Amino acid sequence: MKIYRANILFTPSPAELRVLERGYIVVDDDGNVIGTFDVLPAEYAGAEVTDFGEQLLVPAMNDLHVHAPQYRNHGIAMDMELLPWLNTYTFPEESKYKDAAYAERMYSRFVRDLWRVGTMRASIFATIHPEASCLLADLLNKAGMGGLVGLVGMDRNGPDTLSNTADEAVEGTKCVLEHTKNMPLVSAIVTPRFVPSCTPAMMTALGQLAQDKHLPVQSHLSENPSEIAWVAELEPESTCYGDAYLRYGMFGQTPTLMAHCCYTDGEEFELMRKNHVFAVHCPTSNCNLGSGIAPIRRFLTAGIPVALGSDISGGSGFSIFKVMQYALQMSKLQWRNSDQKENFLSLSEAFWLGTKSGGSFFGKVGSFEPGYAFDALVIDDSELNFDNYSLPHRLERYIYLGDDRQLTHRFCQGKEIQEPQVQ
Amino acid sequence: MKIYRANILFTPSPAELRVLERGYIVVDDDGNVIGTFDVLPAEYAGAEVTDFGEQLLVPAMNDLHVHAPQYRNHGIAMDMELLPWLNTYTFPEESKYKDAAYAERMYSRFVRDLWRVGTMRASIFATIHPEASCLLADLLNKAGMGGLVGLVGMDRNGPDTLSNTADEAVEGTKCVLEHTKNMPLVSAIVTPRFVPSCTPAMMTALGQLAQDKHLPVQSHLSENPSEIAWVAELEPESTCYGDAYLRYGMFGQTPTLMAHCCYTDGEEFELMRKNHVFAVHCPTSNCNLGSGIAPIRRFLTAGIPVALGSDISGGSGFSIFKVMQYALQMSKLQWRNSDQKENFLSLSEAFWLGTKSGGSFFGKVGSFEPGYAFDALVIDDSELNFDNYSLPHRLERYIYLGDDRQLTHRFCQGKEIQEPQVQ
Repeated sequence: MKIYRANILFTPSPAELRVLERGYIVVDDDGNVIGTFDVLPAEYAGAEVTDFGEQLLVPAMNDLHVHAPQYRNHGIAMDMELLPWLNTYTFPEESKYKDAAYAERMYSRFVRDLWRVGTMRASIFATIHPEASCLLADLLNKAGMGGLVGLVGMDRNGPDTLSNTADEAVEGTKCVLEHTKNMPLVSAIVTPRFVPSCTPAMMTALGQLAQDKHLPVQSHLSENPSEIAWVAELEPESTCYGDAYLRYGMFGQTPTLMAHCCYTDGEEFELMRKNHVFAVHCPTSNCNLGSGIAPIRRFLTAGIPVALGSDISGGSGFSIFKVMQYALQMSKLQWRNSDQKENFLSLSEAFWLGTKSGGSFFGKVGSFEPGYAFDALVIDDSELNFDNYSLPHRLERYIYLGDDRQLTHRFCQGKEIQEPQVQ
Repeated sequence: MKIYRANILFTPSPAELRVLERGYIVVDDDGNVIGTFDVLPAEYAGAEVTDFGEQLLVPAMNDLHVHAPQYRNHGIAMDMELLPWLNTYTFPEESKYKDAAYAERMYSRFVRDLWRVGTMRASIFATIHPEASCLLADLLNKAGMGGLVGLVGMDRNGPDTLSNTADEAVEGTKCVLEHTKNMPLVSAIVTPRFVPSCTPAMMTALGQLAQDKHLPVQSHLSENPSEIAWVAELEPESTCYGDAYLRYGMFGQTPTLMAHCCYTDGEEFELMRKNHVFAVHCPTSNCNLGSGIAPIRRFLTAGIPVALGSDISGGSGFSIFKVMQYALQMSKLQWRNSDQKENFLSLSEAFWLGTKSGGSFFGKVGSFEPGYAFDALVIDDSELNFDNYSLPHRLERYIYLGDDRQLTHRFCQGKEIQEPQVQ
């Protein structure tokens, strides 16, 4: 058992930012929260308390959509929209991951950068390469961080250097699954790149795998108008883009993440709601690639689950705090252009998206309620808090103005996580 | 004379990112650029060269719209749109600047934060208070940085605690002008807050002052639909919001900055073009307050001058590099919703907006062409440049991923500027 004391903030529900001024959190030996307390209950009297003083203690970040092999390209080459961007910059870069030494050099930096910004769990696209994908799982596991690693299936419309067969994608995913079977916080996720990259044979095989092994699925959905038109051409029998996943068993038949959903409407919207498919909101990427912005308020009102993603390297930065900032900002621009009957996102809603809502894909993660994994960040915001701000305003200032310099401790499943080594 | 060597990048024109790999820049004793050279000309042989190695050397940032007395509020309280936000958060905070000690404490941090992010010149809204406004000028001058300080005129629709008369605004502005007369890089700017805050008497008096003393003018224009509707009510004789400034001699009769211009169109657009009125683009603020986004591509195509502003505290961060990022991103979202006949902003255009275009309001500032003030930043991006990126990509990565940690030297008008002291 461990007991920590600090200024504790978390969001049990979208509208509730719970604040414990100099409160206590008790964590069991499995790294799960026993409870949070304003006053330490008598049963813990005499137990050792690690006191973080006036620092903030918040749930760690969860990144539900990120491409590890686009690491080198993050922060550059954003002068094109999605499809030419993929062909010009992204596919050639991902092709390099055939080389395990290159993969290790970049993936070790990738894991370090997740750590740096306080992301303790992520759902990750790797590449078609099994060796590099297993290496990524190793690096996450070694760091003590959590995540899902997706060996990518893609067998059409890409370069020859970045193409696998349906069998190879299935075998590669099984390889990651086998490789991670003894890792406590890392596992595999079925990952068809997106419909334009996957023939019906690939979709059929991956859908079958997901259902056979009860594996979660991640892919891309309705990010860009040209992409959507292309999917309609490629899959004329599908009634919408989402249906092209549904037909192959990959749209909520097992837990499913669909990144972007900028243009999701009508039948696709209804399918996501009914099948509890996650919309992973990646607003920085959507800005950088000029894609459009997903209707998050509508998703939330309808009960469609929403998480946040950095979408490196369509997204330029790793920080989910900054993705919260963009989610708030883009919501306001959408509100401006709406009938304004529904409000823009609130700060607590944005924080909830990046913590408890996204974390729910990994289990009881992203909150400090009893039973939740103690994934946490300690924030020394004394430089930002130079004038006695309220605790909610201190969290807001950290989201808008803070960076990794203020993060003093990071925990994942109860263990303090040290800076991963870069190769 | 000083000679510096580094990887030099600047934008003589919007479309040209000029790159000198390990080039030289020669600066005269007045702090103005003599020239940039790939190979040092014979006439400088034997002269001492300060070599910044592989670091980047770029023009310093210019922030053309920022509210110094909103310093405490930056990074908080962004849950409202413009008009309620002003009444609830901004006016009460600005009222505190009657207290010179409070002003000094906040303004010293404000100047330090401009310095920290590499902004060497700014056009600043102060408050109605002459003592605090002169203090702000002192702090800028003492730091060696440049700027225009605007004592704000506002005599209607604000709280009693934040209101001056037309005479007081004129006298206060003259007081700042007199106070700064021997400061090499700091001067005064006529600053009617915005039309809703200024009676015809205030507008008449400030317009007269601007023309009598040949002073530049700054204000706000067409930021928010409710604001625009209110201006139409308050000034029924004006044919558009911009005309309400024009009629009083403050829309290009002297050099004029108008912040925001999100909804500028038709006659107002034409007036800005004809009168060479600067549109100061503040995209982070426009996102945070759900205002809307100015049509920057249309402004540039029409020849309307455009600069960038952080608009603290509508804007959440000080960095003009980050404002460039937002300008690029918002331009892409606008492109998505346009007929796509004109492209979104390019990286060089965004960099030009924050350096040479904005800097032109201060004279020959924001470029490294001969005769330009040597306002410059040295950037050690070695951590970001871990894989031999090209120089344009290194600049792009710094814009998207960098922060003050990478800034190793800051120059304004040829002098190296040290970190200003915080009170």
